[in-house]
Amino acid sequence: MYDTVIRNGLVVTHDSTIEADIAIKNGKILSIGARGSLKEGKTELNATGKVIMPGLIDPHVHIKHPFKDTFSQDDFYTATIAAARGGTTTVIDFAIQWDKKLNLAETVALRKKQADGQVVIDYALHVCPTKSSMDTAKELPKIVELGIPSFKLYMIYRKQGRMTDDGIIFRALEEVKNDGIVGVHAENSAIAEFSEEDYLNRGLSSPAAFPMVKPNIVEAEAINRVLYLNKCAQGNLYIFHLSTAEGLEMVAEARGKGQSVTAETCTHYLVLTEDYYKRSDGANFICSPPLRSYDDVDALWKGVANGTIDVIGSDHCGFGKEQKALGNGDFSKTPNGLPGIELRLPVIYTEGVLKKRISINRMVEALSTNPAKIFGLYPKKGAILPGSDADLAIVDLNEEREIITSNLSGSVDWSPYEGMHLRGFAETVISRGEIIVNNGVFKGKRGRGKFLERKL
Amino acid sequence: MYDTVIRNGLVVTHDSTIEADIAIKNGKILSIGARGSLKEGKTELNATGKVIMPGLIDPHVHIKHPFKDTFSQDDFYTATIAAARGGTTTVIDFAIQWDKKLNLAETVALRKKQADGQVVIDYALHVCPTKSSMDTAKELPKIVELGIPSFKLYMIYRKQGRMTDDGIIFRALEEVKNDGIVGVHAENSAIAEFSEEDYLNRGLSSPAAFPMVKPNIVEAEAINRVLYLNKCAQGNLYIFHLSTAEGLEMVAEARGKGQSVTAETCTHYLVLTEDYYKRSDGANFICSPPLRSYDDVDALWKGVANGTIDVIGSDHCGFGKEQKALGNGDFSKTPNGLPGIELRLPVIYTEGVLKKRISINRMVEALSTNPAKIFGLYPKKGAILPGSDADLAIVDLNEEREIITSNLSGSVDWSPYEGMHLRGFAETVISRGEIIVNNGVFKGKRGRGKFLERKL
Amino acid sequence: MYDTVIRNGLVVTHDSTIEADIAIKNGKILSIGARGSLKEGKTELNATGKVIMPGLIDPHVHIKHPFKDTFSQDDFYTATIAAARGGTTTVIDFAIQWDKKLNLAETVALRKKQADGQVVIDYALHVCPTKSSMDTAKELPKIVELGIPSFKLYMIYRKQGRMTDDGIIFRALEEVKNDGIVGVHAENSAIAEFSEEDYLNRGLSSPAAFPMVKPNIVEAEAINRVLYLNKCAQGNLYIFHLSTAEGLEMVAEARGKGQSVTAETCTHYLVLTEDYYKRSDGANFICSPPLRSYDDVDALWKGVANGTIDVIGSDHCGFGKEQKALGNGDFSKTPNGLPGIELRLPVIYTEGVLKKRISINRMVEALSTNPAKIFGLYPKKGAILPGSDADLAIVDLNEEREIITSNLSGSVDWSPYEGMHLRGFAETVISRGEIIVNNGVFKGKRGRGKFLERKL
Amino acid sequence: MYDTVIRNGLVVTHDSTIEADIAIKNGKILSIGARGSLKEGKTELNATGKVIMPGLIDPHVHIKHPFKDTFSQDDFYTATIAAARGGTTTVIDFAIQWDKKLNLAETVALRKKQADGQVVIDYALHVCPTKSSMDTAKELPKIVELGIPSFKLYMIYRKQGRMTDDGIIFRALEEVKNDGIVGVHAENSAIAEFSEEDYLNRGLSSPAAFPMVKPNIVEAEAINRVLYLNKCAQGNLYIFHLSTAEGLEMVAEARGKGQSVTAETCTHYLVLTEDYYKRSDGANFICSPPLRSYDDVDALWKGVANGTIDVIGSDHCGFGKEQKALGNGDFSKTPNGLPGIELRLPVIYTEGVLKKRISINRMVEALSTNPAKIFGLYPKKGAILPGSDADLAIVDLNEEREIITSNLSGSVDWSPYEGMHLRGFAETVISRGEIIVNNGVFKGKRGRGKFLERKL
Repeated sequence: MYDTVIRNGLVVTHDSTIEADIAIKNGKILSIGARGSLKEGKTELNATGKVIMPGLIDPHVHIKHPFKDTFSQDDFYTATIAAARGGTTTVIDFAIQWDKKLNLAETVALRKKQADGQVVIDYALHVCPTKSSMDTAKELPKIVELGIPSFKLYMIYRKQGRMTDDGIIFRALEEVKNDGIVGVHAENSAIAEFSEEDYLNRGLSSPAAFPMVKPNIVEAEAINRVLYLNKCAQGNLYIFHLSTAEGLEMVAEARGKGQSVTAETCTHYLVLTEDYYKRSDGANFICSPPLRSYDDVDALWKGVANGTIDVIGSDHCGFGKEQKALGNGDFSKTPNGLPGIELRLPVIYTEGVLKKRISINRMVEALSTNPAKIFGLYPKKGAILPGSDADLAIVDLNEEREIITSNLSGSVDWSPYEGMHLRGFAETVISRGEIIVNNGVFKGKRGRGKFLERKL
Repeated sequence: MYDTVIRNGLVVTHDSTIEADIAIKNGKILSIGARGSLKEGKTELNATGKVIMPGLIDPHVHIKHPFKDTFSQDDFYTATIAAARGGTTTVIDFAIQWDKKLNLAETVALRKKQADGQVVIDYALHVCPTKSSMDTAKELPKIVELGIPSFKLYMIYRKQGRMTDDGIIFRALEEVKNDGIVGVHAENSAIAEFSEEDYLNRGLSSPAAFPMVKPNIVEAEAINRVLYLNKCAQGNLYIFHLSTAEGLEMVAEARGKGQSVTAETCTHYLVLTEDYYKRSDGANFICSPPLRSYDDVDALWKGVANGTIDVIGSDHCGFGKEQKALGNGDFSKTPNGLPGIELRLPVIYTEGVLKKRISINRMVEALSTNPAKIFGLYPKKGAILPGSDADLAIVDLNEEREIITSNLSGSVDWSPYEGMHLRGFAETVISRGEIIVNNGVFKGKRGRGKFLERKL
Repeated sequence: MYDTVIRNGLVVTHDSTIEADIAIKNGKILSIGARGSLKEGKTELNATGKVIMPGLIDPHVHIKHPFKDTFSQDDFYTATIAAARGGTTTVIDFAIQWDKKLNLAETVALRKKQADGQVVIDYALHVCPTKSSMDTAKELPKIVELGIPSFKLYMIYRKQGRMTDDGIIFRALEEVKNDGIVGVHAENSAIAEFSEEDYLNRGLSSPAAFPMVKPNIVEAEAINRVLYLNKCAQGNLYIFHLSTAEGLEMVAEARGKGQSVTAETCTHYLVLTEDYYKRSDGANFICSPPLRSYDDVDALWKGVANGTIDVIGSDHCGFGKEQKALGNGDFSKTPNGLPGIELRLPVIYTEGVLKKRISINRMVEALSTNPAKIFGLYPKKGAILPGSDADLAIVDLNEEREIITSNLSGSVDWSPYEGMHLRGFAETVISRGEIIVNNGVFKGKRGRGKFLERKL
Repeated sequence: MYDTVIRNGLVVTHDSTIEADIAIKNGKILSIGARGSLKEGKTELNATGKVIMPGLIDPHVHIKHPFKDTFSQDDFYTATIAAARGGTTTVIDFAIQWDKKLNLAETVALRKKQADGQVVIDYALHVCPTKSSMDTAKELPKIVELGIPSFKLYMIYRKQGRMTDDGIIFRALEEVKNDGIVGVHAENSAIAEFSEEDYLNRGLSSPAAFPMVKPNIVEAEAINRVLYLNKCAQGNLYIFHLSTAEGLEMVAEARGKGQSVTAETCTHYLVLTEDYYKRSDGANFICSPPLRSYDDVDALWKGVANGTIDVIGSDHCGFGKEQKALGNGDFSKTPNGLPGIELRLPVIYTEGVLKKRISINRMVEALSTNPAKIFGLYPKKGAILPGSDADLAIVDLNEEREIITSNLSGSVDWSPYEGMHLRGFAETVISRGEIIVNNGVFKGKRGRGKFLERKL
């Protein structure tokens, strides 16, 4: 007898949409069968009229992320509950080398201590070195061996001590090219700093100035540069939160010339624009890279549709309204980042699929299957196959809701999507066979999530 | 009770390799389940130690293809038996407008009459107009409505009356861009003819001269041209039998710039080279485009590996030794084409997978899933999913055989792969649930195959 | 004592503007000196307030050019008078192989017979084969040896028997790459014909339809194609009358990748637009390629400014109003071509230099020095250097005139520039030391011009 | 009566080679005339059998350039004598902001004080800021107004405090785009430093390791980057001492896409290769960028031939043998730079013109006319036109010499070209009408040279 059988649903994966039932046992998918072909389960779920997707994977979240003296609000417990309610069954957070006295392995251990016992879904970590040193270069292969084959290097935040320079980026691409992947936050630090100084000098410090302080070239130059480095290194590159049409074109061309490069954009770059910075609550929308123009939004959707953009992450970084107000109207002092871990699916479904910009299969690919494939989780995660982890999201596509922050979980007291009318809410979410969200309500236990060792 | 259950095999698809059992009922796959999770079937197949793939699709075969006064040897019966023994459960042949008095629909009807009642596996047709006229342009959308959304246009064979010119190619790309795909045989007719005349004038008519008569530019120019036409038309283009590194690079770049273009190469371009033309039996290897250099072979394998080449077809065109001898040593009078419908899988497995040029999943993608997706057969064909046609190939990857023509089925009395030691032979082949090849022996009935209506 | 001294003028060449006097003897420039540094001349010309340029070279004129049963109106006598009055001291016309029974040398002889004894300025010929045969290929090097190193191949006019196909174009590029240059009329014949048939079928035969019948792709495809052929041949290519932004970009990129390619646009593509076809006299403006959009005009000016476009020719082809009316409102029956041999300088000066799109030096380069360099006439022509032919145009840049056809010489009874207010009229024109235009009036003798043998 | 007349020479300019005589008065060229057409001069020079070129311009010299505690050996007096003897009549040195407390104008004043009263030929200065600050940005336009429209920014030497970052480079390109030009030393500082640290750590400090420490990517990345910045800024860019095939290709493509960018290579990159670092005196050849491979040399010559490379400078930086030995065999401690101010002409003539890699006109263009045009000196310098400064080099192309350091002037006790057999030595050099080199011997007066104010 199966543990759980889900019947009568429409199973939607990255490249098929079929009527099928799914049987689960011991936390794994046991079999997928045509309607009515499967034996009974202890638990029977009726998914009539609903779609079943592989549980989503959010490869870009920042939990308890510091900005100056404060931290983004939600912790691993609250953030992963929000993720789970949004249909996400795996998140990949970052082990950032904030303390340069710690090596990378120690940095990872520290971060795992924060997450373990708290997360309610499975999680993994990207490692983020902040030292452009030979030590860093030498430690990278060891980190890969620890089951962490993905990295993020900041090309920006020189003054804040977070930037790693071209020397280590090039070396990192070479070091892990066979069994790892190097991601970058692609913004040119010097140009952004020079521009910021210029704007501030001229007294232009309001959020409305922010997108002009970091125009498209700030990102595009960095992408142009790192693509050249990757070409020379013959490395394996991932672009985090690509936001510009220019950058997109560069990625497409590099791929056309044979480079191994994948790209992520984020929910907000597909839906929100720089006009938000002119609103009275514009400071809330400060994030890096900034929100862009309508033309960029259009280009990004085309990129998702034609596959140039592989992944849509949330870049969740949940500063609350009070924290956002710390800048006192000065963009340079406002914490960067938007909350978004919970609404990735309904926003993309409503703006992408319902508006016919992308197919539902393409959506599943960008929200689940591709992150799994790129970061070494497939087909354990991101797939509905016998033997895969039974991570599933059951969604009633017909239900429409208005976004009201107080209905969201998480600890953040505002949402960039407040007031939108969306569809695509997960009704039931299953993680390793356990129903952790039922009727939209979280039912799981604190700390049930596990750290995922990965291999590329 | 299931009709058939295949147990203990390794299920290999285009993007996963899992241990799973497969249940079949009424010609369809009913369920896929973890080892031992499925109920009994009337027929139980034990695939221990073997892999199970979706039945292969050969999107490029020429059965009873004319050359001057003769026809390629095998007919729809013998050719499809050979296909089946090679693990192929679907072929796509051509309805070529040989008789210009017939319109395209009539041409299709004629071709179906030849195939129906003969084919032992399912088949489809590409339609191949030979008239560069307004009539052709107007009929294309009607052909799409008939369930034939794919076309092939010859950019060569002007003198033979088969070439269609840039006017109709451009128009065709525009006409069917939303629901069809235009394939081309990309060779520049004028350059090839001029070159041929030059060589023949100089008395250079031996097969050894053939690859110089049609150097890479003959193909590359045509690809460059048709890609530009497709860019302007915003069409959906398929390159048949791409054979050159130059053409490959062009396709990759066009795709990098957002074009909708897919590319096929063929078995022989991945394994044989122009050196074969210097052999005493060099005339046998005359085909168009010609076999190329080792550098081209290397480039093509890289193209298959990185996905620039989507499909590997056979371009099967089985002229026998006597027919090949009709040219009497003059390449220009020798029938063009190589037999290959039966050995696609073992050749690609041995040269590609065993030599670590591509993964086995990539092989399945190129031989089955991609042709299905590109030509409107997916997930009915090319997939192992509940509801898909139960078209499967069970392969013992460990068995090695030397290729001896007399062991092959088909009616062709020679093989380009004679003498090679290969692995990757289908042991059991199932078509719509029926075991048509058992232990390598064809067991099916003449005419059991069906014409496949398609939709993109 | 010098024959002639020109004093007090501003000498403007392709890369300098200096105050200098010029001394002429025996038809050659003898010396150039600072103001007042030269001895006396038999004839003293005072160029105070005027500029002196090297005599212009028009590398693209069609004199007595046939269209069906009629010929463009002016003959070598009247056309070259018009040229001379426009400051042009050299024209390059075409020896077109209208009679395919004649070989190229015979074709040249025939054309020279028409010109010699008639022309009032020096002239040269491009040879234009119309047969895509081996004979043509073999004769090209012999024509180069005759002092005619430049060719023109039509990629259009297949039905009219004028098109040469890709086979001979590729071969021609190879044959003369070291000592010749292959020019092309770049339009795709098949696409243009198909499109024309389509428009005519739909009853759209008015001049207003003409630019849509031959949209930019018709030219751009042909340029894309011939650039690829030239790349493979490593040839030396000239694009006649480039008219599109797309084609321009292709030429620039090809050059950036090391190709030897030069490009010409024509006066009318820089000034007139497709809107003219909507006028009641729209038929007059039928020419191939057609007039284009404002965006194309802008792009072309930028191309002239940055040097991508090397040459501005006139493509003079003077059909009169009655001839233009032969089409009776059907663009497909209207003789193609615009008169323009006389007004190249004032139109380009007024629209280009006065509007600050290009410098005056760049103008001289495009109208004189570059044609001389590209076609093997430099520094005999196109230069103001000791030893150069004393071909000079003295221009009063301040004089403005309204264009009234009856003030023009030539035999054509209309002008595309009628009504424009222009500056840049040649006051005095000197050919091999002889003042052939004085105060704007032609004073030379019929037949004084000579055929120019050339060498690259 | 003229001051000086040069008769019977062959006048070679960037685009013509003519038999002509030249008359000089008051330091200017007065007239150019056909043989025998000019009146008498007080001084008559017979140039029978010789060529006369415009005096060469060396736009890239470092005189008294510091490295740690030492300075390159020759001063403005000895270096300009060496230049003059090499046919060079104008040098452009640098005003480098070594002292960051000085602003740019003060830096210029300081440098002029060192040069004035010493130089024997005319000179100009590029200004080289070392501070990536807003102050720098604001001062640039003022420097242009001072008659110094050209700048050099180091993209390398971060640790040495000389690097300016992308912020100021981008801003500089924007600031002076209409009336100035921004040059760069294009090497990626971070990659070079990381690589150097790596090699030194591994004990690889010998000169033989040097080219591997700074492989082609170090330059190519910087060129790729600065071209993108220039594209965005729509600026006017100059690449100093381009040394790699990769960089060359990027420049060509950028130009093909419409960028305003010019490129310089240097004598040594065209003649010497990385093999020199393996010699026992390898340390002498340490320079940045390093000498490259034979393939790079070939590519660079092609670039000079086809015009992608506009200029050949010397990058003269004359450290003596003892200074070179300061590094004690450690490349990282060896002063960088090669002497070359005197031999540019014979090396390029012998290796370029005599070996038929470039024409003599192209050589004159790269050594004289282009530097004049690019840096705002034309036609005062770099031209043989009435009114130009009478700066001329008279060269006996037939005389061959073996290079022996002791025959060279300058203060440097070795030469990279020692032992080569060269032709192309200037016999007579005239600066503003004054014969400063006669029969190869310097005759001029210390301090006779003047600072040149320039305007673009």
